[in-house]
Amino acid sequence: MARDPRYDILFDQVRIGPVVAKNRFFQVPHCNGMGYRDPSALATMRAVKAQGGWGVVCSEQAEIHPSAEICPFIELRVWSEQDVPMLARVADSIHQYDSLAGLQLCHNGMNAPNLYSREIPMGPADLPVFSVFNDPVQARAMDKQDIRNLRRWHRDAALRAKRAGYDIVYVYAGKLFGGPMFFLSRRFNQRTDEYGGCLENRARLLKELIEEVKDAVGDSLGVACRISVDEMIGEEGFHAAEARDVISHLAELPDLWDLTLSSWDNDSQTSRFVGEGYQEPYVRGVKQLTTKPVVGVGRFTSPDLMVRMVKQGVLDCIGAARPSIADPFIPEKIREGRIEEIRECIGCNICVSGDHTSSIIRCTQNPAMGEEWRRGWHPEYIRAKESDARVLVVGGGPAGLEAAMMLGRRGYEVALAERGRELGGRLIHERRLPGLSAWGRVADYRIGQITPMTNLETFFESDLSAEDLLSFGFAHIVLATGSSWRRDTVARNMLHAAPLEGVECFTPDDLMAGARPKAKQVLLYDDDHYYMGGVLAELLAQEGYEVTLVTPAAGASAWTFNTMEQHKIQARLLEQNIIIRANRTLARAQAGHATLACTFTGREETIEAGAVILVTARLPLLGLAKALRTREADWADAGIKSVTVIGDALAPGTIAAAVWSGRRYAEEFDTTPDPDALPFRREVAALLPFDFSAVMAHNPQR
Amino acid sequence: MARDPRYDILFDQVRIGPVVAKNRFFQVPHCNGMGYRDPSALATMRAVKAQGGWGVVCSEQAEIHPSAEICPFIELRVWSEQDVPMLARVADSIHQYDSLAGLQLCHNGMNAPNLYSREIPMGPADLPVFSVFNDPVQARAMDKQDIRNLRRWHRDAALRAKRAGYDIVYVYAGKLFGGPMFFLSRRFNQRTDEYGGCLENRARLLKELIEEVKDAVGDSLGVACRISVDEMIGEEGFHAAEARDVISHLAELPDLWDLTLSSWDNDSQTSRFVGEGYQEPYVRGVKQLTTKPVVGVGRFTSPDLMVRMVKQGVLDCIGAARPSIADPFIPEKIREGRIEEIRECIGCNICVSGDHTSSIIRCTQNPAMGEEWRRGWHPEYIRAKESDARVLVVGGGPAGLEAAMMLGRRGYEVALAERGRELGGRLIHERRLPGLSAWGRVADYRIGQITPMTNLETFFESDLSAEDLLSFGFAHIVLATGSSWRRDTVARNMLHAAPLEGVECFTPDDLMAGARPKAKQVLLYDDDHYYMGGVLAELLAQEGYEVTLVTPAAGASAWTFNTMEQHKIQARLLEQNIIIRANRTLARAQAGHATLACTFTGREETIEAGAVILVTARLPLLGLAKALRTREADWADAGIKSVTVIGDALAPGTIAAAVWSGRRYAEEFDTTPDPDALPFRREVAALLPFDFSAVMAHNPQR
Repeated sequence: MARDPRYDILFDQVRIGPVVAKNRFFQVPHCNGMGYRDPSALATMRAVKAQGGWGVVCSEQAEIHPSAEICPFIELRVWSEQDVPMLARVADSIHQYDSLAGLQLCHNGMNAPNLYSREIPMGPADLPVFSVFNDPVQARAMDKQDIRNLRRWHRDAALRAKRAGYDIVYVYAGKLFGGPMFFLSRRFNQRTDEYGGCLENRARLLKELIEEVKDAVGDSLGVACRISVDEMIGEEGFHAAEARDVISHLAELPDLWDLTLSSWDNDSQTSRFVGEGYQEPYVRGVKQLTTKPVVGVGRFTSPDLMVRMVKQGVLDCIGAARPSIADPFIPEKIREGRIEEIRECIGCNICVSGDHTSSIIRCTQNPAMGEEWRRGWHPEYIRAKESDARVLVVGGGPAGLEAAMMLGRRGYEVALAERGRELGGRLIHERRLPGLSAWGRVADYRIGQITPMTNLETFFESDLSAEDLLSFGFAHIVLATGSSWRRDTVARNMLHAAPLEGVECFTPDDLMAGARPKAKQVLLYDDDHYYMGGVLAELLAQEGYEVTLVTPAAGASAWTFNTMEQHKIQARLLEQNIIIRANRTLARAQAGHATLACTFTGREETIEAGAVILVTARLPLLGLAKALRTREADWADAGIKSVTVIGDALAPGTIAAAVWSGRRYAEEFDTTPDPDALPFRREVAALLPFDFSAVMAHNPQR
Repeated sequence: MARDPRYDILFDQVRIGPVVAKNRFFQVPHCNGMGYRDPSALATMRAVKAQGGWGVVCSEQAEIHPSAEICPFIELRVWSEQDVPMLARVADSIHQYDSLAGLQLCHNGMNAPNLYSREIPMGPADLPVFSVFNDPVQARAMDKQDIRNLRRWHRDAALRAKRAGYDIVYVYAGKLFGGPMFFLSRRFNQRTDEYGGCLENRARLLKELIEEVKDAVGDSLGVACRISVDEMIGEEGFHAAEARDVISHLAELPDLWDLTLSSWDNDSQTSRFVGEGYQEPYVRGVKQLTTKPVVGVGRFTSPDLMVRMVKQGVLDCIGAARPSIADPFIPEKIREGRIEEIRECIGCNICVSGDHTSSIIRCTQNPAMGEEWRRGWHPEYIRAKESDARVLVVGGGPAGLEAAMMLGRRGYEVALAERGRELGGRLIHERRLPGLSAWGRVADYRIGQITPMTNLETFFESDLSAEDLLSFGFAHIVLATGSSWRRDTVARNMLHAAPLEGVECFTPDDLMAGARPKAKQVLLYDDDHYYMGGVLAELLAQEGYEVTLVTPAAGASAWTFNTMEQHKIQARLLEQNIIIRANRTLARAQAGHATLACTFTGREETIEAGAVILVTARLPLLGLAKALRTREADWADAGIKSVTVIGDALAPGTIAAAVWSGRRYAEEFDTTPDPDALPFRREVAALLPFDFSAVMAHNPQR
């Protein structure tokens, strides 16, 4: 299909100092939970972005010196020559597809607790580190020697980046991660020397670092400055007017401006709270302060919006982290006129959880994310079929849809049987909950993909029995029958069913199916801790119920800390006058009352509650699987060679996990994985030569 | 000095199946935050334990299969042959000193969220994983094939352990980490097959795993079983009577029983909550159920108590994790009759924070912990002096004491000047706070060590001026002048000083110096989040004050999650009727009232408060350093070659960090560290050969 010429502008070249990007698509730096631990996996993930057409592909933040390291988070490091080979592997991978490789040099300053290096953190003042976990570590105020050191460390890191083959290096002053931002922000910078006070002084360190890096590598590498255009805490922080003043002041110094909001949770907001393009009001006008190209983000997945950003002079380059994770091929799809094939980011931030849990980045929409090298999965391609096997997929939810779609892409003949009248499974209901409408894209994309497939047929209202499956003649049966929420208190903090007598009880399934309590006062018991409890509380409050959210965790939707939503969710619930009773289990309920038990002391208290909503654990729906198992003796006669349970029916989890499970089935189909072999590749630490006697040299006894 | 013969019994050999331990000192498995990432650092740490005389030195838990991995925590792995070289390095290091090397094989079962491997966790039932962070992951019930797989994986791992040179392997069923424990505990195991129901059935999996491992390697390796003797939640969990029944049932099957409490926070309780030997009531009598040797722990540092444990038939081997961290040389010191030199564990659990933050294990008492290989530090030895330099250490707190002691050990002439009449610095007061008396050991050990030193002189009541320092003739001056608590609200969550008018305000320093509020109702504002706020709340409550603890965190002493104390601290505070107002900052205070602001919504509320205790940030005490700096022109004439600030005066932090800072000074003295060189060694991931086209094989465009 030919590209719509109105998108041509997105494919203009962009000059970034001495280098030129082939188009305006700019994968801004983003974390990934792989970093120094999983370099080839990381390199391949970036390469796939390049393959997908991003003109610039950047690394995550790369720590330039052990005096600012953010362990437990796992990022790249540029500490010494020891790091150069893995840095080079990332750059080389990106270069396979003619993209520019960017390295985000970072000295986290007083954001870094240095738990690994044990070096004393440094910042503008003697203040506690501004880290995520309230670490008992204070930073010390930098003196002039420290500033000279920091400049030299930036220079050294830039030179290492150059040796590793990068085209662009960053100086990072954003999100209260990049150390110079603590100098920009008045609340941290209370210095009285030439690095504190007026804005010019507060910007001096940033200016010097950019100058230093330009001097070191500016002849051959583009030098970008990433800065936050608003700390979003009002006048006490680094705010919009100040940011514009700083950008005006340093306007032509860097070769590119990369704009963010601060802190990270404001920069990468979820679809539950903001829509596409939400950063426009914050970045509009910045471009007019400089002749250098300006990059900004906003979860862009719509090429029309991208074009408007460029045409209206808001941005020069379309920055993206999350959209490039959900679909690394956005640029290629636009270039080739395949915009209907774009797999749009749903804005759930499950990707962020990979960084927050030091595991590997995952994506609800793109199950290949993080698995490109480990398992050889690709976001767009999958190897062709290896037999003429026919596969029946039972269940049209996230796992079934993904399995069917990818089996279909491989070329197998696939039947997808859905019990209801609609595809989407749990998403059919969940997308209608407050704030979750964008999540429907998981179903929409896959439905859009399978609809034209001639080798895939979908059957609705197919509530199949074991007998049906035995009679159909499919050699391979995939059961993606989903899960249902438990109707008791068994979950994470309580393993027994509390007595709930004489009180109406509802599960999330009940509410999503339209059932509602008669009583106005409802108690929502959340021992799930991801989004469901908070979302349902919101739903009920919007409908006029008086909601008390009871949870054994310390806050509402506690796990959403990992998607950077917890603070926003709890604020929203409180603003809707939902009462939150944290650190409590539901001991029992009787007509009109519920008894809560403190998780610390066991002390009980009774509150009024006319109905109880149980957001606890889920049970896999295995009825069909079990029925089929009892007929195992008949499989051979029926031509059944395999029966496989996937998705929530295998183990209830996130939508991302269900999609991943469906993908795994399709990837491994027609193979026989060895249960004893490692199911993925990994790299392990290289042992240095070890001279034991040298290590023990101080021992006078030997 | 000759050993007291009553300790001879501790040096009896102990047979563990086919291997023999040279004595009863048994370093039980313990995590360390290094694991697969830092293998040589880990190996050297273990080797120092062996050097210190532990007859058995074990690894941390080593994950045997990716179907149970506990990322973000970093432990060893026994996943494939790829791991064998690093496992062998650990074993080889331990063997340098004729100790037995133990590998704690572990399949975490439904404790493992598998965020890294993405494999579905497995357990006795379809239940949410029982992980630390309420991960949105459910385990699936194991079927017979899963159990066969698990047995085989244990066998394979045991064979790898053998190839790597270990003498002992574990089957782990403890602390709700070792997967078989979920089968033992009724609350998780609701199976109706032969692996559920009666205790014999619930123990079947454990029995089979031990049998499998014995069959694989039992001819040449000792096979230990680590089990929890009480889950400490009453009848719902795996309790004492059941544990004894299981041990009786399997009595002679393993070659050794290693006893723990469950969960980890109960097993490794801090000195704030329990004293030495606290596990005796739980383990007493177990030994009588088996002829095999029994290991137990209890933060043992007293040889007399160890002897009693053996003589009274409570334990065969003296297990230790934390005491062996604080002093890896306990066995050697007892053997050589140097028991006064034992550096006793203070029971603070800062070691655990290394694992919880995926950084490297640290220790308040032993600053060399984790630095043995990285920096070449040793817990007992330090290289001899390299000049005749004389050093003046100003300040007798943790940093000054450590610096002086280690400089003294090196042989330098050292003067230690203390402003007051007592050594110990912050510990002088902190050890008198509720629950912290054992922390005084940090000072006591060092005072005991320096007292007999002839090259070290201590001066009391030496409140020195810059003029004094210039006149003394010391070439090197170390300023360990400590810090003081801020008298305002500036700390982690608020960077400005809230107006506090007409209300008595106290800092921790004030309270520790004996000052007390006149009012009975006090508000304690904790934006520090480590122990101080909780301890002072407890102190005041004990004295009859009505205390409200206000904190911007979600709970009291939030960072103590990392020392596994948060739950116990908050319980204790609530039991003392302290009111906890979490998620709130202190907006302002006026006579008799304080206004709090919700951290989520900003909503304000006013509470009564006659006095405010501010536990916020600290300020380094740099008066002397600054005065000396203004006289820098006179240093040369005064013979001053260096002035160095260390400890809390450099950056206020933990006591562990202060001690470490003092040690660093002594280690680096007479060297000139290069500020651009990495200050420690590390190992990085070995890049696998990378065939880019193979990775991108699915791309039809290339």
